[in-house]
Amino acid sequence: MVDIIHRVGIKAPLARVYAALSTVEGVAGWWTRETTGESKLGGSIDVVFREPNGEEKGRMRFALQKLEPNAEVRWRFSSGPEEWVGTEVTFQLSQEGDYVLILFGHRNWREPVDFMAHCSMKWATFLLSLKALVETGEGKPAPVDLKIDNWN
Amino acid sequence: MVDIIHRVGIKAPLARVYAALSTVEGVAGWWTRETTGESKLGGSIDVVFREPNGEEKGRMRFALQKLEPNAEVRWRFSSGPEEWVGTEVTFQLSQEGDYVLILFGHRNWREPVDFMAHCSMKWATFLLSLKALVETGEGKPAPVDLKIDNWN
Repeated sequence: MVDIIHRVGIKAPLARVYAALSTVEGVAGWWTRETTGESKLGGSIDVVFREPNGEEKGRMRFALQKLEPNAEVRWRFSSGPEEWVGTEVTFQLSQEGDYVLILFGHRNWREPVDFMAHCSMKWATFLLSLKALVETGEGKPAPVDLKIDNWN
Repeated sequence: MVDIIHRVGIKAPLARVYAALSTVEGVAGWWTRETTGESKLGGSIDVVFREPNGEEKGRMRFALQKLEPNAEVRWRFSSGPEEWVGTEVTFQLSQEGDYVLILFGHRNWREPVDFMAHCSMKWATFLLSLKALVETGEGKPAPVDLKIDNWN
């Protein structure tokens, strides 16, 4: 098993960062606008990614497996790209001076395939989108996400 | 051992991407302006990172261990942060349609420490800087690099 890990710092109240990770409205502001589901423990969330022209690029479903207010959020993927099924995304939050620090992990990939390298780069850009959303009020969720290569 | 891997696509001639990874002038355009050394196989390159106010944040030395024109560049770090010594950075290049694809790896970390998560995020922003340099002529090397957390 191999993991993607990133660390990002956000200058904003901890509760706002937590809300952006633990609610449908929050996730829609930085990952993909087309986010639906239930913002509660065990709740199922669906995310759809489209091209700017509306064409669907992919969709995934995850469960909110852990919701520890202002401390940790864990998502577990039950459908989506084959490589993602069974993987987990964790956001561990802490405060250090002016910063809320997020230790991000997308864990339990079976192999370090090129698609994992693509996703690592995309996650970094989505974490910058999250940082922008919380600090400035405007993120870059799909379909206005930053394109990084020929896959997305 | 654990690895950071990223994938990025650049719309530009392969030779220009290769030059940006294999020469002192190239690296100075996207990683840190303070890059010196010898752009040849086995050559030793020194990189220094500073705050915008000039204060030194860190320095590293690496050898150009592999230079396979338009295909692969490998750096091996001999000094710098303790966690980096002995690690290798690889850039594997290929062409796919309009894109030069880079499969980036920073390999052989001893442990997946928080500093590795920080470096994974920073590498993603430096790869975006590389993409901007080659596509538009202007990267964001240190000290004008994008700051992502309380460490840098």
